[in-house]
Amino acid sequence: MKIPHNLLSFLKQEDDFFIATHINPEGDALGSSIALSMALETLGKKTLVYDRDPVPNYYRFLPGHERLIHSAGGIETSAFNLLLLDCNTPDRAGIEALEFRSSAVIDHHETEKEFGNLKWVEPHAAATGMMIFFLIKELGTPITKEIALNLYTALAIDTGTFRYDKTTAEVLKVASELVEAGAKPSLVSNGLYETWSEQRFRLLIMSLNTIEIRENVAFTAVTNEMFQRTGTSAEDTENFSGFPRMMQNVVVSAFFRQISDNEWKVSLRSKGDVNVAQIAALFGGGGHKNAAGFKIKGTLETAKEKLLHHITGTK
Amino acid sequence: MKIPHNLLSFLKQEDDFFIATHINPEGDALGSSIALSMALETLGKKTLVYDRDPVPNYYRFLPGHERLIHSAGGIETSAFNLLLLDCNTPDRAGIEALEFRSSAVIDHHETEKEFGNLKWVEPHAAATGMMIFFLIKELGTPITKEIALNLYTALAIDTGTFRYDKTTAEVLKVASELVEAGAKPSLVSNGLYETWSEQRFRLLIMSLNTIEIRENVAFTAVTNEMFQRTGTSAEDTENFSGFPRMMQNVVVSAFFRQISDNEWKVSLRSKGDVNVAQIAALFGGGGHKNAAGFKIKGTLETAKEKLLHHITGTK
Repeated sequence: MKIPHNLLSFLKQEDDFFIATHINPEGDALGSSIALSMALETLGKKTLVYDRDPVPNYYRFLPGHERLIHSAGGIETSAFNLLLLDCNTPDRAGIEALEFRSSAVIDHHETEKEFGNLKWVEPHAAATGMMIFFLIKELGTPITKEIALNLYTALAIDTGTFRYDKTTAEVLKVASELVEAGAKPSLVSNGLYETWSEQRFRLLIMSLNTIEIRENVAFTAVTNEMFQRTGTSAEDTENFSGFPRMMQNVVVSAFFRQISDNEWKVSLRSKGDVNVAQIAALFGGGGHKNAAGFKIKGTLETAKEKLLHHITGTK
Repeated sequence: MKIPHNLLSFLKQEDDFFIATHINPEGDALGSSIALSMALETLGKKTLVYDRDPVPNYYRFLPGHERLIHSAGGIETSAFNLLLLDCNTPDRAGIEALEFRSSAVIDHHETEKEFGNLKWVEPHAAATGMMIFFLIKELGTPITKEIALNLYTALAIDTGTFRYDKTTAEVLKVASELVEAGAKPSLVSNGLYETWSEQRFRLLIMSLNTIEIRENVAFTAVTNEMFQRTGTSAEDTENFSGFPRMMQNVVVSAFFRQISDNEWKVSLRSKGDVNVAQIAALFGGGGHKNAAGFKIKGTLETAKEKLLHHITGTK
């Protein structure tokens, strides 16, 4: 991975950085932002780390998560250089209204729009955390235990703890160096996978009980009534769509979350070459090949029928 | 990891090897045995790979799994040198009745009994697959793509795909080398985690529906009636005990599988320092600190009560 020279000079020459990442942050967004903040402060820089949304409970094991601020009120952002991480347009971070001295993008998603005075995008990187690892090495600051844990979490979340295709030899080598530097894999996996509330687990069971499998598509759903009965909310359904993929005969998993009486948020997960981004696009949504989503109006039954119709039509 | 000289000379000098591993084999047992067989055959040796039990369906993605034989009938085993892998006594492999020319143990479990003319045991190795990796390197034969996939699977299964404590920097470094040599992480994780039958998934849902949580112990159960209704069997319940551990407030997960009208097999999983091997021992069972099991007679309700009594008594 080759780090642009102008990005390195920029980071060395400037003093004040406003690190921002996408709304609804996950481990790569948080881990990368916190790690870069720590490294830059070692170099004597001033950093702010911003996310519009709160740090989810299950990421509060990340050392430095308390650095995150969720409002830019009272901050003269025009004195700061923006570092936009793990996304590449200000609207993804909810900071369209803010002015900065200059801006740099560091991301592993394909860019859609032109933004940033500087831009370092590596669509083949498994995680933004991989890029930050090499960047910190190049900056010459140490990979401390705290940085290691943040970057290990970034790698873990974006590779399904080393289960997905993008788990390259390089990813595992970097993970090995991070463990050497003090990251504890079991701490990360406990934090990520073993901190569900009992209510969330009961909601999962309810959702699994709704399962219906038709033409290799698994449908599951969570209704507002289930949220009320368990005292849970939308964020508790993260990854619910992944479970039915365990079945060999399931090619697409479609999880319906009720938004209102007559509207549903649909999360799609697929295996192999089945492109659910294309299917989501038919409904005005988007995403990646194997993970996408959209919103749909109607009863659960009509919404399911429409979706199935389009999936079997595009297969 | 230091490989005993006498083991290396033994492997180089002898020509015929009977590789055997434990009954009810999993990824480490199978992957290690197949990989070692492949490497020794590259050196011109003759090998047989034996397991008393069949290769589970979800391990049939392993290249070379068809090498496994399940009967020693008609084989003059006394002409072979036994290599006992991933276990350390013949009864664990169901080969007590067979005679061999000599025998060597290669295992990462603590040895319980004295067995083997040669013995290489590394209780700190994350998997027997780690030992076989270094052994093959030392033998000087190449880590082929097929060997890499087998050893990667061995590492993956014994570390919960790099989630458990024993995921050391060295484990990840070896994993990186194996991917470099051609192992595909997504192939392994699909094979391990996404090949459930629909029936098995429906059995899991039924089991989760029985959940009862008392004093940080989660109880789930599968009855014979559920097996009948779904057309599944005991082997389909592998890992069922792991799911309730996702909950933060669950310290012990106890999964009850019905054996007969009045008997249950109990699988215990725990977190952190809670030692379920000690609890299982109270009922005549055994295992490791965080994973153990035993059999108990009685109704499901009385069995649960007895167990809870002992868990709360030892906490």
